[in-house]
Amino acid sequence: MYQAKAYSVASATSPFISDTIQRRETTERDVQIEILFCGVCHSDFHTVRDEWHSIMPTTYPCIPGHEIVGRVTKAGSAVTKFKAGDLVGVGCMVDSDHDCPSCKANVEQFCPSSTFTYNSPDKHLGGVTYGGYSDSIVVDERFVLTVPTNLDLAGVAPLLCAGITTWSPIRRWGDIKGKKVGVVGLGGLGHMGVKFARALGAMVTVFTTSPGKKEDALRLGAHEVIISKNADEMKAHAGSFDFILDTISADHDINALLGMLGLDGNLTLVGAPETPLQVSAFALLSGRKSLSGSLIGGIKETQEMLDFCAEHNITSDVEVIPIQKINEAYERLARSDVKYRFSIDMASLKSE
Amino acid sequence: MYQAKAYSVASATSPFISDTIQRRETTERDVQIEILFCGVCHSDFHTVRDEWHSIMPTTYPCIPGHEIVGRVTKAGSAVTKFKAGDLVGVGCMVDSDHDCPSCKANVEQFCPSSTFTYNSPDKHLGGVTYGGYSDSIVVDERFVLTVPTNLDLAGVAPLLCAGITTWSPIRRWGDIKGKKVGVVGLGGLGHMGVKFARALGAMVTVFTTSPGKKEDALRLGAHEVIISKNADEMKAHAGSFDFILDTISADHDINALLGMLGLDGNLTLVGAPETPLQVSAFALLSGRKSLSGSLIGGIKETQEMLDFCAEHNITSDVEVIPIQKINEAYERLARSDVKYRFSIDMASLKSE
Repeated sequence: MYQAKAYSVASATSPFISDTIQRRETTERDVQIEILFCGVCHSDFHTVRDEWHSIMPTTYPCIPGHEIVGRVTKAGSAVTKFKAGDLVGVGCMVDSDHDCPSCKANVEQFCPSSTFTYNSPDKHLGGVTYGGYSDSIVVDERFVLTVPTNLDLAGVAPLLCAGITTWSPIRRWGDIKGKKVGVVGLGGLGHMGVKFARALGAMVTVFTTSPGKKEDALRLGAHEVIISKNADEMKAHAGSFDFILDTISADHDINALLGMLGLDGNLTLVGAPETPLQVSAFALLSGRKSLSGSLIGGIKETQEMLDFCAEHNITSDVEVIPIQKINEAYERLARSDVKYRFSIDMASLKSE
Repeated sequence: MYQAKAYSVASATSPFISDTIQRRETTERDVQIEILFCGVCHSDFHTVRDEWHSIMPTTYPCIPGHEIVGRVTKAGSAVTKFKAGDLVGVGCMVDSDHDCPSCKANVEQFCPSSTFTYNSPDKHLGGVTYGGYSDSIVVDERFVLTVPTNLDLAGVAPLLCAGITTWSPIRRWGDIKGKKVGVVGLGGLGHMGVKFARALGAMVTVFTTSPGKKEDALRLGAHEVIISKNADEMKAHAGSFDFILDTISADHDINALLGMLGLDGNLTLVGAPETPLQVSAFALLSGRKSLSGSLIGGIKETQEMLDFCAEHNITSDVEVIPIQKINEAYERLARSDVKYRFSIDMASLKSE
């Protein structure tokens, strides 16, 4: 074991403080990574505040962070894919059972024994896993991604969660080239959805409740913006969408959005409102529509997404912060005041 | 025009009475049909009682019936598919615009100008269309189906709605051979779902709240029955289904059913509960499942269904009644007391 620097919280109501944690020595399949940037995901926020207590209670101290970009500093003897100096990424998972039907189907996120990057039982050291708000991490190479060298690394970090979460359902829908695609919500997830859908050749429309986001939506690649509170705008586009990616985590009118879909249209949720969605059966029957959910993505498709980003020069729009500003960033995150992701420059941790 | 015998209701609270109505003379594309049997669908009930007022208010007098089997008595000069004496069927639709994307895609049920078999604007005579509780009907040949000659006609009638409503989503799901398929509810729709899924080679499980239906479910072709109120039985099958056909029109726990689906599983609704379904986003995200709706089916797939039934000797289980018993049948329908469809023997109307 060795000591790593990190920022942790001691309880659901505590601020982040500078801390020291134990990381394991690299086993033969592990790579040790010096963390360069770590994105700040809403899941970090929910976990830190123990807001998902009923599903996965938070163990403290808690060190979140699952949008990690870094450089390999050490590789175990059996590691084949990476060597010291390589640029790499780590997303929401660091291990799985490698053997179940989900793992064999390259959807490790549905493995019943998957180990999440933080707040998940740590097989090696006991306790729970510690995430990327730290200067280093040790991860099984099978959960380490190759990061392209041509992209801004601060903006690459959020691809590891926000990126794959939106990429996976878009790709799974099929070939969206020339299709009419809606993206609901323009936040960390939504702005990636817009970039991917545009780069894949779709006609992209952003649904937002905020007229102030219109200009930015167009800049990010949307062809059109619908203010979803405006009944006339909604009516004008009713029944015209092939696919809608819904990134909203708050309660919202799902039937109004289903009404935007055409025949056989699909709306996929990647946000998870806490209260049940009120779904009208008629909204699904008429036009035989479907409502789906999608959860991050597997390692193989995460690599495909990163490679696509390299080819199309896609990164997340980020506000780079030093780790010392993390408490302030959380306050701003609580009021969705970020365009569109905070990315922690981990060089700031060296000076502590 | 000519006069036809029928049974009609004069208001939402009136009983059926013997009546005389006007039917059009056959135009060049029409066939005139002597109705032999007409199934009694729950939609008939809802329409007669004006229970769908907010979506499609009922115009009175109302003559329902859209599960029609009969014999061609006259064919217009341009009719190519039928001649006098042919056994034919008519389902939920009698016309459409023949030209829109839905019509071109053989899903006439989604044509914005489709004419339903009853309570729909009648292009020829004005007023609304009159359905199959009658001794004859005149229909554009493009909405007339060929009925196999080897099947019990009383049991064929319900195929025109209950049959196609369940057949269409099962077929659209893909090849269900060897797949684990659930059918929720064992009524007019559900019992057809069981027969089709079994004939198509699926492993079929019926979900029912009524332990008394177990024996019948197995007789109809189910391999297994889950009493959905029994938490242990539900838990034992959690995450194991590929596809679930949900035929329940009353409010029910949709998340419990979504929990039965495995990875990428789909649940399709063919019933339409009046109150919104309470759908947990987590229930869709975990296992990236989907919830769909399906509405009857197109003419082409209705013919395919009838041909499949001929080949596999499939009909609906019916209780044959004379038209004079229709008011009593509606009372029994209100308490779901029928196995599994009433089929009106229209010979009974001749004696009026």
